[in-house]
Amino acid sequence: MTKTDVHYGDYLQLEKILNAQELESDKQQLHAHDEMLFIIIHQAYELWFKQLLFEVDSVAAIMQKPVNDNSPELQTVVHRTSRMITILKLLVHQIDIMETMTPMDFLDFRDMLRPASGFQSWQFKALEARLGLKYQHRFGQEYYISQLKQAQIDLIKQAENQQSIIDLLNQWLERMPFFEEAHNWTNYKPVSDISNPTEHIFWEDYQQIYINSLAAAEQSNRDQFNTIFTKDTPEAVRQLSPRACRAALFIMLYRGYPILQLPFQLLNSLLEIDEQLSTWRYRHMSMVHRMIGSRIGTGGSTGRDYLKGALDKHYIFADIARLTSFLIERRKLPALSTEMEKRLGFK
Amino acid sequence: MTKTDVHYGDYLQLEKILNAQELESDKQQLHAHDEMLFIIIHQAYELWFKQLLFEVDSVAAIMQKPVNDNSPELQTVVHRTSRMITILKLLVHQIDIMETMTPMDFLDFRDMLRPASGFQSWQFKALEARLGLKYQHRFGQEYYISQLKQAQIDLIKQAENQQSIIDLLNQWLERMPFFEEAHNWTNYKPVSDISNPTEHIFWEDYQQIYINSLAAAEQSNRDQFNTIFTKDTPEAVRQLSPRACRAALFIMLYRGYPILQLPFQLLNSLLEIDEQLSTWRYRHMSMVHRMIGSRIGTGGSTGRDYLKGALDKHYIFADIARLTSFLIERRKLPALSTEMEKRLGFK
Amino acid sequence: MTKTDVHYGDYLQLEKILNAQELESDKQQLHAHDEMLFIIIHQAYELWFKQLLFEVDSVAAIMQKPVNDNSPELQTVVHRTSRMITILKLLVHQIDIMETMTPMDFLDFRDMLRPASGFQSWQFKALEARLGLKYQHRFGQEYYISQLKQAQIDLIKQAENQQSIIDLLNQWLERMPFFEEAHNWTNYKPVSDISNPTEHIFWEDYQQIYINSLAAAEQSNRDQFNTIFTKDTPEAVRQLSPRACRAALFIMLYRGYPILQLPFQLLNSLLEIDEQLSTWRYRHMSMVHRMIGSRIGTGGSTGRDYLKGALDKHYIFADIARLTSFLIERRKLPALSTEMEKRLGFK
Amino acid sequence: MTKTDVHYGDYLQLEKILNAQELESDKQQLHAHDEMLFIIIHQAYELWFKQLLFEVDSVAAIMQKPVNDNSPELQTVVHRTSRMITILKLLVHQIDIMETMTPMDFLDFRDMLRPASGFQSWQFKALEARLGLKYQHRFGQEYYISQLKQAQIDLIKQAENQQSIIDLLNQWLERMPFFEEAHNWTNYKPVSDISNPTEHIFWEDYQQIYINSLAAAEQSNRDQFNTIFTKDTPEAVRQLSPRACRAALFIMLYRGYPILQLPFQLLNSLLEIDEQLSTWRYRHMSMVHRMIGSRIGTGGSTGRDYLKGALDKHYIFADIARLTSFLIERRKLPALSTEMEKRLGFK
Repeated sequence: MTKTDVHYGDYLQLEKILNAQELESDKQQLHAHDEMLFIIIHQAYELWFKQLLFEVDSVAAIMQKPVNDNSPELQTVVHRTSRMITILKLLVHQIDIMETMTPMDFLDFRDMLRPASGFQSWQFKALEARLGLKYQHRFGQEYYISQLKQAQIDLIKQAENQQSIIDLLNQWLERMPFFEEAHNWTNYKPVSDISNPTEHIFWEDYQQIYINSLAAAEQSNRDQFNTIFTKDTPEAVRQLSPRACRAALFIMLYRGYPILQLPFQLLNSLLEIDEQLSTWRYRHMSMVHRMIGSRIGTGGSTGRDYLKGALDKHYIFADIARLTSFLIERRKLPALSTEMEKRLGFK
Repeated sequence: MTKTDVHYGDYLQLEKILNAQELESDKQQLHAHDEMLFIIIHQAYELWFKQLLFEVDSVAAIMQKPVNDNSPELQTVVHRTSRMITILKLLVHQIDIMETMTPMDFLDFRDMLRPASGFQSWQFKALEARLGLKYQHRFGQEYYISQLKQAQIDLIKQAENQQSIIDLLNQWLERMPFFEEAHNWTNYKPVSDISNPTEHIFWEDYQQIYINSLAAAEQSNRDQFNTIFTKDTPEAVRQLSPRACRAALFIMLYRGYPILQLPFQLLNSLLEIDEQLSTWRYRHMSMVHRMIGSRIGTGGSTGRDYLKGALDKHYIFADIARLTSFLIERRKLPALSTEMEKRLGFK
Repeated sequence: MTKTDVHYGDYLQLEKILNAQELESDKQQLHAHDEMLFIIIHQAYELWFKQLLFEVDSVAAIMQKPVNDNSPELQTVVHRTSRMITILKLLVHQIDIMETMTPMDFLDFRDMLRPASGFQSWQFKALEARLGLKYQHRFGQEYYISQLKQAQIDLIKQAENQQSIIDLLNQWLERMPFFEEAHNWTNYKPVSDISNPTEHIFWEDYQQIYINSLAAAEQSNRDQFNTIFTKDTPEAVRQLSPRACRAALFIMLYRGYPILQLPFQLLNSLLEIDEQLSTWRYRHMSMVHRMIGSRIGTGGSTGRDYLKGALDKHYIFADIARLTSFLIERRKLPALSTEMEKRLGFK
Repeated sequence: MTKTDVHYGDYLQLEKILNAQELESDKQQLHAHDEMLFIIIHQAYELWFKQLLFEVDSVAAIMQKPVNDNSPELQTVVHRTSRMITILKLLVHQIDIMETMTPMDFLDFRDMLRPASGFQSWQFKALEARLGLKYQHRFGQEYYISQLKQAQIDLIKQAENQQSIIDLLNQWLERMPFFEEAHNWTNYKPVSDISNPTEHIFWEDYQQIYINSLAAAEQSNRDQFNTIFTKDTPEAVRQLSPRACRAALFIMLYRGYPILQLPFQLLNSLLEIDEQLSTWRYRHMSMVHRMIGSRIGTGGSTGRDYLKGALDKHYIFADIARLTSFLIERRKLPALSTEMEKRLGFK
C-alpha cells in the first residue's frame, strides 16, 4: 500500500480554518475593520485552549497509572506541564495584539455581538476544571451557568467529574513515604552540629525547628503549620491532605536528592501554571477595562467584575503555594541518615 | 584642543559599576550563591528607574513651556513616553529572572538583609510622584515614611512638590478649546443623517446622544457623566478638571484629525504606562508571595499586603481611563463644521 | 426585524476550528503525542497570516486613493502597520512553543508528513509579495514553484501583480515636494551659524554638507550617495526612485515638523516590519536546524538552506534602511525658511 | 555582637551605581538627551554580563570536581544554566529599548564617543571564552586585540586558559560508560520486534540502523556519522571527542531513563544558550545596521561586519547541535537489556 502524499494545506485543513471568519458588521453592511482581528484572536485563543486541554489530559492519564514513581513517565509529565507554561506565556503576550484595538474601534461592532462574550469559552472553563478548580470554588457560579448552552455545561461538568490534576497530585504525594517512614528516626541534630550525618529526624523534630525559627509576631504561622500538616479540614477549604502536604514540603526541602529532582520540578511547574493563569486574568481584566470602561460587556455584565472575582478565587494550586511559609534555612535542615540518602538515590 | 580618546570601560565607569556587589553572606562567611543575583537584579532595576526619572523630567520640562500645542516638541513628548513603556515592559520581563531563585535559595541569605527591603527604593516612589501619585493617595503612607531615611523622604517630597505629569496634562488639556468653542455650534445632526456636514454641535448635544445610547441598567453611567464632565469635585478624588476631561474626550472621539493625532497618542501612552506599572506590581506581588509566602519580608511586614494595596490605589491616570465609558459609536458621532475641520488640520 | 442573539461558539465557528486537527500518526495507528502541537501551531500561524494579509490589503487600499497626504487616513495606515508589528512579534515568540518539541519527539511522526512542508504556506508568500518582494528577488524561485499547487501559485502571482506596499510608498514619496521645491532656495547656512532662519537650502547644499561629514575612509558612501539620490538604476536593483529617496531622507531629517510626524512613523514601521520578519526567519532557521540537523526536511530539501537564503535576500524595505547612512547631525542641519516651516505645519 | 541594620541603598551601593553616568555631550556643552539611555543600557548589559560570568564560573567549579555523576550537584548545574538562558532572553529583549533611539538621535553624540565601542566589552568576550570559544575560532582576532587595553586582554586570556564549559562537558561525557560498556551486548533487535527486551546492542548495531534509515540522497550524513563518532580529528575542528559524542547521542536517545534526565536537560540548556547568544548577535547586528547604516562605527570599523562574522563562527556547542542529524525514530530504537535498564535507574 502506498501512502498518498501529504500536502500542507490539506494536512492543516486550511480550507476550514481560513474560511471560518464571518463578520457580523459585514452582515449588517456596516463594515468594521477591526472585527476581523477580534474573531481571529479569539480563534487563536481557542486553538491554544484545545492544545492545553490535550496536554492536561495526557498528563492526567499518566498520573492515573499506578506507576513506579521513578519511571520515565514522570519526565514526560514535567515536560508537558512546562510546555503548558510556555503556551500560557504566549497567551499573555497575545493580549498586546488585542490592545491595538482602541475603544472607538471596538464600539464600531461591539453591540452587534450581544450577548456573545468570552465567558462563553467552555474550553477555558474545562481547562480550569481539569486542573482542579471545583464548581463551588468558582466566582459567579450561577452567572456562568446562565451564559452557556446545555451541551457546553455538560462538557464542563464532565471535566469537573474526572480526576483533576490536583486530585491526582494529592494521591501521588500521599504515596510518597518520606516523612512518614521517619517514625523510627531519632536523635535529630541540625546539620551544622554533626560531623557524622547518620542521625535521623522525626516530623516532630522538623516542627520544632520551624517553630523555633518564627519571630514573636508570627503566631499565625504557628497555627497554620498545625492546621496544614496535621488536621483534616473540609475539602471545600483544602485540596491537599496533611499527608500530601508533608510529602510536598519534604520535596521542597530536600530537592537536591536525585529522586526528588523531577518531583520538585513538577511542583514548581504547577505553581508557574497558576501564576501564568493569574497574570493572564489580570492583564485580561485591565484590557477589558481599558476597552469598555465601566459599561456593560457584550455578555451583559461588567466583564471586569467577573475577572476580578476570578482573579482572587481561582488559584488552583494554592495549597502548594502556601507551603513556602513553612520552609527553614538549608543550614538548619536536619541531616538525613545514610540509609535515607540511599533511598533518595544518593550513594 | 584635542579631545582625548574615549574608552568603553572608562566611559561607562565600569570600575564603579562592577565593583558595587558585596555579599552580606560572604561577610558572614556563609556564602549564599544567589545573593549575587539578588544584588545585581536590584541594581539593574535602579539603573532603569534612573532612566525613567530622566525621561519623565524631560517630558515635564517640555510640558511646562507655554508651547504652541502643534509644535515639534509634542512629538518628543510622545516619543519619550513610548520609550518609558518599552522600559517598563522590560522591567516586567525582568521578574522572570528573579523567579529563577527558589524560596530555599532565598532563605540562605534572607535574614541577613533585614531590615532592607524594596520599599526603600526612593527612586521608584519618586517616579510615581513625578507621574502624579499624591502622598495622600498612597497606600500605607506612614509605613513607607517609617522605612526611609530623611534624605530620601526629602527627595520624594521634592518630587511630589513639582508639577507632575498629570498636573501638566490637566493644564494642557484645559488650554484646548474644542468643545468649549462650540458655544455657538447649532443644529447638530448625527453624521449619518446629513449630506452637507456644515452643522455644529454643542456639548449639550453630545451629552444627549450619549445618554440616549445607554441601556436602562446603566443609570450609574448617566450620573457619572454629569459628575465627571460638569461638576468640580475635591482634588482628592480627581486629578483632571471637568474642562480637561471634555478636551480629552474630544481627542478620543475625533482622533483622526491631524491636529489630534499626537494628543491621542499621548493619552494612550499614559494609559499604557499605568497598565505596565500595574502589571509590574501584580507580577511583583505574585513573585514575592511565591518567594516568602505569608511570612514577614525583610522590611518587617508582609510585602505582599503593601503591593496588593498599591495595586488597587496607585493608578495615576485613572481619570483618563474612565473616559472610555463615555464614548459613543463613530457612526453616531456628530459631524464637525467645515470651519472646525479646518482648525483641526483638515482641508 | 429582530436580530438573533449571537453566541460565542457560533460566532467564532468553533465547530470548524476545533475539528480541524487530524493526526497522520493516528491514521497510521502510531500515535505521536506531539503531532497535535505541530498541527495547532501551524494553524495558529496561518490564522495570523490571514490577519496580516487583511491589514496589508487595507493599508494598500488606503494608499491607492489619491488622498490629501495630510488626511486622517494616514493615521490609519500607521496604526495598522504598527499592529502588524505587534502580530509579528507574537509570531516570533510563538517559536518558543515549537521548541518545546524535541528532535526525538518530532522524529515520531516526521516521515509521515512528507512531502508537506512550511514552504507550502502560500499565505506567507503572498504576504511577502504584497509588501513588495518581487518574484525575481526570491531565493530559490523554481524550488518554491515546484512545491506548490497551481491554485496556490496563482494566488501568489495575483498578490505579486497588485501594487505592493513598496510601490505605493514610492508613489506617495514621489508626490512629496520637499527637496524638489527648493530649486529657488538660496544662501544656505548651517542652523548653528544663523540668527534669522530665513535662509534656504538646495539639494546641492545638503549633498555638500554630507560629503564634508565623511571621513577619508568613507569613499564608498560618497559614491552611493550619488547613485541613490540622483541616478536611475534598473528596477531589479532598487525599489525606490531617486526622487522618492530624497523625500524619505527629508522626512527623516526634519521629522519634528508636524506634517512629517506621521510619515516618519510610517517609514519607521516599515523598517520594523522588515526587522521582525527577518528575526522570525532567523529564529525559524535556528529552530529547524535544532530540530532536524542537516538531514532533509519534510519538504525534500534542507529547510535551513532555504531559510538562510531568504534571510539575506528577502529584505523588502532595504532602500529605506540604507538611507540611514546619509543622515547628518541635527546641529549641522540646514535651517528651513519661514515659508517652508509654515508649509510643514509649524505656525 | 549585634549586626548593624542593613539599608537598601547602602546594601546596593546606589551611591556608586547612580552616580556613574557622565555624558560626553554635557562635557562638550552640546547636551544630547539620548546619551543617558546609551550609557544606562550598556551599564545594565555589563551588570548582567557579570552575573552570567558568575554563574558560568560556579558551574565550571562544580563540573571540575570528580563528582559522582548522580549527585545533587548536577541539578545545580542544570538550574544555573537555565538561569543563564533566562538572563540571555532578557538581554535580547533589552534591544527593544535601544531601538527607541533613532539614527538622528544617535548622531547627536555618536562622534563624541570615538573610538569607544561595544567591541571593548571584555566581559562579553570572557563569557564566550569561559563557555568554550577559542581564540583561534574567533572572527576578526587581531582586530579585537587592537581594540582592547592590555589589562583587558589579560583578563580574556585568563578566561581562555581555564577549563571551559565545553572542555568540562567533554570530560564528563567521556566518563559516561553507556555505549562503551556495550562491547558484550549481543543479538540486537529493534524494540518493536521483541517481546522480551533482554537483548543487547552494540555501537555497530546502532550505526547499522542509522545508515539504513538514510535516503539515497543523504550520503553526506553517512560520511559525517563515521567522522564524528569514530575518527579523531584536529582539535581546531571539533570540541567533543568521538567518545563524548557517542555518550551525548546515547543521552539524547534514551533520555527517558531516570539517570539520563538531568544530563539531557543539561545538553538542551547548552544548546539553548548558544541559540540565545546567536539571537542576541543577530538582533544586535540588525539594530546596529538600522542605527548607523553602512557608515563606520564608533570603534572605527563597521560593527555590522564584525557581528555578522561572529554570527556564523561563534557557535560554541555546535558539536552537540549536529548530533541531531544522527538520531533515529524511537520505535526503531534498540531495546536495552534489563541489566542496562537497572543501571539507568529503572527497575
